[in-house]
Amino acid sequence: MDLGIAGRTAVLLGSSRGLGRACAESLAREGVNLVLNGRNRADLDDAVAHIAANGSVKVVGVVGDSSTQEVHEALMDACPNPDIVLLNGQGPSPARFADLDDSMWFDALRQALIGPLGYLQRVLPGMCERRFGRVVAISSAMVKSPNSAMSLSHGSRLGLTGVLKGLSKDVVKFNVTINQILPERFDTARQEQMARVVMKMKGVTYEEARAEQVASIKAGRLGQATELGDAFAFLCSAQAGYISGQNLQMDGGSYEGVF
Amino acid sequence: MDLGIAGRTAVLLGSSRGLGRACAESLAREGVNLVLNGRNRADLDDAVAHIAANGSVKVVGVVGDSSTQEVHEALMDACPNPDIVLLNGQGPSPARFADLDDSMWFDALRQALIGPLGYLQRVLPGMCERRFGRVVAISSAMVKSPNSAMSLSHGSRLGLTGVLKGLSKDVVKFNVTINQILPERFDTARQEQMARVVMKMKGVTYEEARAEQVASIKAGRLGQATELGDAFAFLCSAQAGYISGQNLQMDGGSYEGVF
Amino acid sequence: MDLGIAGRTAVLLGSSRGLGRACAESLAREGVNLVLNGRNRADLDDAVAHIAANGSVKVVGVVGDSSTQEVHEALMDACPNPDIVLLNGQGPSPARFADLDDSMWFDALRQALIGPLGYLQRVLPGMCERRFGRVVAISSAMVKSPNSAMSLSHGSRLGLTGVLKGLSKDVVKFNVTINQILPERFDTARQEQMARVVMKMKGVTYEEARAEQVASIKAGRLGQATELGDAFAFLCSAQAGYISGQNLQMDGGSYEGVF
Amino acid sequence: MDLGIAGRTAVLLGSSRGLGRACAESLAREGVNLVLNGRNRADLDDAVAHIAANGSVKVVGVVGDSSTQEVHEALMDACPNPDIVLLNGQGPSPARFADLDDSMWFDALRQALIGPLGYLQRVLPGMCERRFGRVVAISSAMVKSPNSAMSLSHGSRLGLTGVLKGLSKDVVKFNVTINQILPERFDTARQEQMARVVMKMKGVTYEEARAEQVASIKAGRLGQATELGDAFAFLCSAQAGYISGQNLQMDGGSYEGVF
Repeated sequence: MDLGIAGRTAVLLGSSRGLGRACAESLAREGVNLVLNGRNRADLDDAVAHIAANGSVKVVGVVGDSSTQEVHEALMDACPNPDIVLLNGQGPSPARFADLDDSMWFDALRQALIGPLGYLQRVLPGMCERRFGRVVAISSAMVKSPNSAMSLSHGSRLGLTGVLKGLSKDVVKFNVTINQILPERFDTARQEQMARVVMKMKGVTYEEARAEQVASIKAGRLGQATELGDAFAFLCSAQAGYISGQNLQMDGGSYEGVF
Repeated sequence: MDLGIAGRTAVLLGSSRGLGRACAESLAREGVNLVLNGRNRADLDDAVAHIAANGSVKVVGVVGDSSTQEVHEALMDACPNPDIVLLNGQGPSPARFADLDDSMWFDALRQALIGPLGYLQRVLPGMCERRFGRVVAISSAMVKSPNSAMSLSHGSRLGLTGVLKGLSKDVVKFNVTINQILPERFDTARQEQMARVVMKMKGVTYEEARAEQVASIKAGRLGQATELGDAFAFLCSAQAGYISGQNLQMDGGSYEGVF
Repeated sequence: MDLGIAGRTAVLLGSSRGLGRACAESLAREGVNLVLNGRNRADLDDAVAHIAANGSVKVVGVVGDSSTQEVHEALMDACPNPDIVLLNGQGPSPARFADLDDSMWFDALRQALIGPLGYLQRVLPGMCERRFGRVVAISSAMVKSPNSAMSLSHGSRLGLTGVLKGLSKDVVKFNVTINQILPERFDTARQEQMARVVMKMKGVTYEEARAEQVASIKAGRLGQATELGDAFAFLCSAQAGYISGQNLQMDGGSYEGVF
Repeated sequence: MDLGIAGRTAVLLGSSRGLGRACAESLAREGVNLVLNGRNRADLDDAVAHIAANGSVKVVGVVGDSSTQEVHEALMDACPNPDIVLLNGQGPSPARFADLDDSMWFDALRQALIGPLGYLQRVLPGMCERRFGRVVAISSAMVKSPNSAMSLSHGSRLGLTGVLKGLSKDVVKFNVTINQILPERFDTARQEQMARVVMKMKGVTYEEARAEQVASIKAGRLGQATELGDAFAFLCSAQAGYISGQNLQMDGGSYEGVF
């Protein structure tokens, strides 16, 4: 399938590893030039080098925390007019509700809500003027099925979900779409980290913690990052311009609700 | 993007025209062999001929009402082991709630609920055994946003939505996914027919009725059938195996709700 | 709390036992005159006698299957102008998807979709004219969380859910509200029957089957019919006129989804 | 209807005016002792005086911004063991997305998300120990139907919605329920203020702005605060213990979505 976006340019927040990197790789296969971002310079350099080596697209990296104004400015310098934007970032660690405090909230909200929206304020107007834009946020399946141990995560991400939905109504008439992907349990470093949290909390082995993750997914397996990358690329395609304001669950069919 | 389904076989109910035909054309481009279906032999023959002429896939047609057991049997004869199934059919005409009677209900329910499920009973077990299946139903945006003039339509289609969701939970572990697309106002013969209904109901011109359709869509345009065809093809891809039980709205971003 | 409905008249389909009877008892306490209905004459007579004996409201019974036109006519004779209507009826038995056939579908759809709507066609216009109406359907928690063994139930009830939502938009301007209650696992004969089904299916004792029911509810207990009756009465109150098109889950907080 | 809560004690954040005060008045009628709160001392004193004068319950006031730790402490001093809690507060003013900045976000999030949760951290454990608790938040219809001009509001309130849902799953087994009411356009000072905002934005008269509010509601009228107060009281009742994690829309039947 020709996605109709060869030659476009994408800025991908949080794309040096895991799901974000898979999104970058899927876009590179479609001929999209890339600006990658991540906090860890070694990871970022590795992603830039590999993607550049495997394809014919331009790839640059902007290191740093994508929720900060400094990084927003560096991204604007690297790409003043992105056609495609990925909003992605590491989620907070699990925490008991009783243990949450103001500074944990403000950190989580800056990372998952205020930061991404600050970057969108910079790039949405140009997308609307140029009559093309594809914004996709990687959120979490938990926004539809919250669990108190992840309050910081879904508290922030649901806020973003709502704001993006409201914005999507304003900009779709300019061929600018805004969608979210809601992943659950992909086979990335994040799930390895979560397994280690569960080992400690429940006193189980790493293998048991991983088996528990698989058992929680109706598909009987974890998701593969390339699957998410390709779904992301489809949502960024020219022919996805009539799809906006959607929250696509990628959860191995696990969500119980009809909608 | 390589969808990983070249050489697979699909049975598409209600695919001689409009959205169903666009789904067939998108799959043909991916190298999927097709069994098409429609009630009108001339339309069906035209679809078979054109798709066969434009590509290198095998295309056959089974004429008839896809909600009947006779057509289910003919489809099984034509393709005992489909990998991909499209559930699609013409919706009922608008009607005032006060005018509905039992026979209108039974017709609508046979078309949109009982018939499609009868066909699924025949093909789902084989998909599970063979560890690959992609079932997609074309429903309607109204299942999430009902309007009393279309009670026959969403009354039937919501029933199907629920049954498919329940089934999806059982079969996803066999790499069989079941999803729905919820279209709103695509530029097909259906919307031309709806415009003519509105002309009579409101005493407006055809052009006014069409302009009203466009105005009802936040994207400021109707959807194109090829857009839906490609979204369908993506949901049928090998790499969409972690996506199941989803209701993807293709409505130009018009739905008001956050989920 | 004064519900402001003393002296009103209610027709309650399926009210001789269980949840329906509890709804009747709650309305009787508020001074609402009642027309009860059930298929079993002894149960119905018992309900009429007890409610009449305990209060000062008028109570009559109409025996028969509330999905039939004959019973609709008898109900209209008993009460041509109801202010309040309960739509309730026994759900179908569990069945494997593979075992469903057309006649099982038509029976289920007549009971849970076509029958109730036929009765509504008779009474809604009068409610609109008189500028007061409260319609409440007892549906099932499964309409938001379907399970394939209950396809007949949620396939029918979701259809009703959609039609009622569409209708609610038309009539709320006349102070006629339409809402649903979605119960899960109330301590009635229905759950005793479901426990016996589970005993056979899983080879467990009755006590084990009942314990499983309790364990499936986050509240750690089954619901009490009187709780549902009072929630129903509240939705029928004068002061609930701004609440319409709602699906109130009474499930001991068990639903996973945020909406 | 006897709500079974006479003699209980409630703490109501943001209850000196409007919807919050109506909640207080409904509880007072049920014999619940009250701790009221508001930022404006004159309004608060008025509310305390009137409610105390009209009933036989104990009423005290705690003045101040309910999102601050100082006020949380004062509320704990006034009532260490509340049985019932209302989470309510003034929403932010409308603002264009382009104009939002970090400090506007942090203010809104403190008011609508972090502040209320900080208070809940103090009172939930006691409710669980005592095996009774009713927490209700007054949110906004916009959490299900976002509009970009109110991003600060639904961005914050959706976050709260998610966190409360997650928490509700943990505490319902202790007979502690957590629900939200989602109001749209009640006839309070808030809508008068919104009408004045619209006057300026659209250059219309106050009467036109008010008429627009009414026209936006399918019921053809604004809601009355007493209606919301009574719904709140019902959700706080003893017999509402099986209802938790719900988002009850009070919007005159205006929401388009089926769920």
